[in-house]
Amino acid sequence: MEKFEITILGCGAALPTPRHLSSSQIVNVREKLFMFDCAEGVQTALRRSRLKFSHLNAIFLTHLHGDHCFGLIGLLSTLGLLGRTADLHVFGPNNLVNVFQPQIDFFCEESPFRIILHEIDSKQHSVIYEDRSVEISTIPLSHRVPCCGFLIKEKPTLRHIRRDAIDAFGIPVSQINNIKAGLDYTSPDGDVIPNHLLTLPPDPIRSYAYCTDTTFKPSNADLLQGVTALYHEATFSSEQSLLAKKTHHSTAAQAAEIAKLSNAKQLIIGHFSSRYEDENKLLEEAKKVFTNTLLAADGKRIIL
Amino acid sequence: MEKFEITILGCGAALPTPRHLSSSQIVNVREKLFMFDCAEGVQTALRRSRLKFSHLNAIFLTHLHGDHCFGLIGLLSTLGLLGRTADLHVFGPNNLVNVFQPQIDFFCEESPFRIILHEIDSKQHSVIYEDRSVEISTIPLSHRVPCCGFLIKEKPTLRHIRRDAIDAFGIPVSQINNIKAGLDYTSPDGDVIPNHLLTLPPDPIRSYAYCTDTTFKPSNADLLQGVTALYHEATFSSEQSLLAKKTHHSTAAQAAEIAKLSNAKQLIIGHFSSRYEDENKLLEEAKKVFTNTLLAADGKRIIL
Repeated sequence: MEKFEITILGCGAALPTPRHLSSSQIVNVREKLFMFDCAEGVQTALRRSRLKFSHLNAIFLTHLHGDHCFGLIGLLSTLGLLGRTADLHVFGPNNLVNVFQPQIDFFCEESPFRIILHEIDSKQHSVIYEDRSVEISTIPLSHRVPCCGFLIKEKPTLRHIRRDAIDAFGIPVSQINNIKAGLDYTSPDGDVIPNHLLTLPPDPIRSYAYCTDTTFKPSNADLLQGVTALYHEATFSSEQSLLAKKTHHSTAAQAAEIAKLSNAKQLIIGHFSSRYEDENKLLEEAKKVFTNTLLAADGKRIIL
Repeated sequence: MEKFEITILGCGAALPTPRHLSSSQIVNVREKLFMFDCAEGVQTALRRSRLKFSHLNAIFLTHLHGDHCFGLIGLLSTLGLLGRTADLHVFGPNNLVNVFQPQIDFFCEESPFRIILHEIDSKQHSVIYEDRSVEISTIPLSHRVPCCGFLIKEKPTLRHIRRDAIDAFGIPVSQINNIKAGLDYTSPDGDVIPNHLLTLPPDPIRSYAYCTDTTFKPSNADLLQGVTALYHEATFSSEQSLLAKKTHHSTAAQAAEIAKLSNAKQLIIGHFSSRYEDENKLLEEAKKVFTNTLLAADGKRIIL
């Protein structure tokens, strides 16, 4: 299977601690790296992860609270010092340009690469990035400021060639790509060999949803239906559900409820309040609702 | 002796690494904390140091290159979340207000404390902060952008009472503060006991100079004369002296030459280029010129 791998660089909430950086992740789809949120210290975490700075393809910010974006200017600055020349696109909600363009103009004046800021409409579900491997769309969330999550969906891969059948029917090499793409084969004598005899189905399409920060928003289950892995914020335990409501965050049980309604294959909870010394309390709470849940941790890698 | 203690939070140059945060230090004078430079990740390093966020008194930025100030907005934001109410003064060169006021207005809108930015003239030596314990003045440096170091000098302490003499002369308790302040004692009979019989001299006045980033600037030796400890950047070894000149940095030997010309008691070198895996090379180079040199390290504490 082609690579589809998540590296969690930070999964703490507003107050970074020596244990947790604030929100930042890398999604590696076929060796292109996409960054989701960009907390203070993200460049050092990225270096620690041994992922390649040069493979960074685009950056997506859910919202403009500091714990999701204070690492952006440092990262952009470092990419310049490292000699990047490829354009870098940064997507984020309202005010992205207001807030970051002046900083970029001042601190990245000598940047050897172009930084292109894109303000996205966080209230609409729409595709905002697409290449031949992946499609990235927004998931409207409900927080104190404009905020959206992201759905990362790989493009369909080709069908798998059955080596034995190719040999048995004497298919020429020149036809292999057509057959992988699903075409039948017509021999020089006019015999038609149907594709299903020559191939096996492609790998199933994998998807990953990154949903933070948000109140409990079950209406998103539609958009998230059948997602391979769902990262959902679980800032608080249910004991703090009033506080969660007040601050527009979710509890671990609510994150799990979203995973259940979405028929997700796997749930990863994160964005932990610094009050929890032991996040297993949150894990247990979520697992009661959705069994296949795991705790995010800084540096953790999840292969889809 | 009263507390005068330096904690190095970061001593790397432009590129932060897992080994070195960029420039940031805390100087603790009698339990008031003064921060010098404020690199990305400084708030986590401060937490690790176990120094008290609530004792932070003022922040001083040498210049507005990212590796000296990208941690400011995160720190200010966190101080707000921690409920600080005391005013916080931030000193820095030209453009401090241009660059940081908009960020503060956006990200610290709900800050429970006032953040007051002071632009200082980095070309002049002048006292910019004073309280009853300490005086902080600027040291003009020569870098690619407006930049100044800082000289932190404690205020004179009182003379030490000689308990034995006080008892022998039968001095009343009410007179002790006057005698500590240097006055003679006149007894009810009119006898004058000279102060030098009743006291020992006060502790010598300690000072600390923080000089980064700068080319070799020997004219500063005058201002730095007799400094107790000098922190001086030593970005490169002498092998890279052309690069040092071009980028307006100093070599380890040049840092040591400044310490020697200044008759400093101790030199601490830092702001190491990330190219050096082993900074002992820089230490050896400096020690050839100035013996009492030590290498900065993240988390290192130096008691004056």
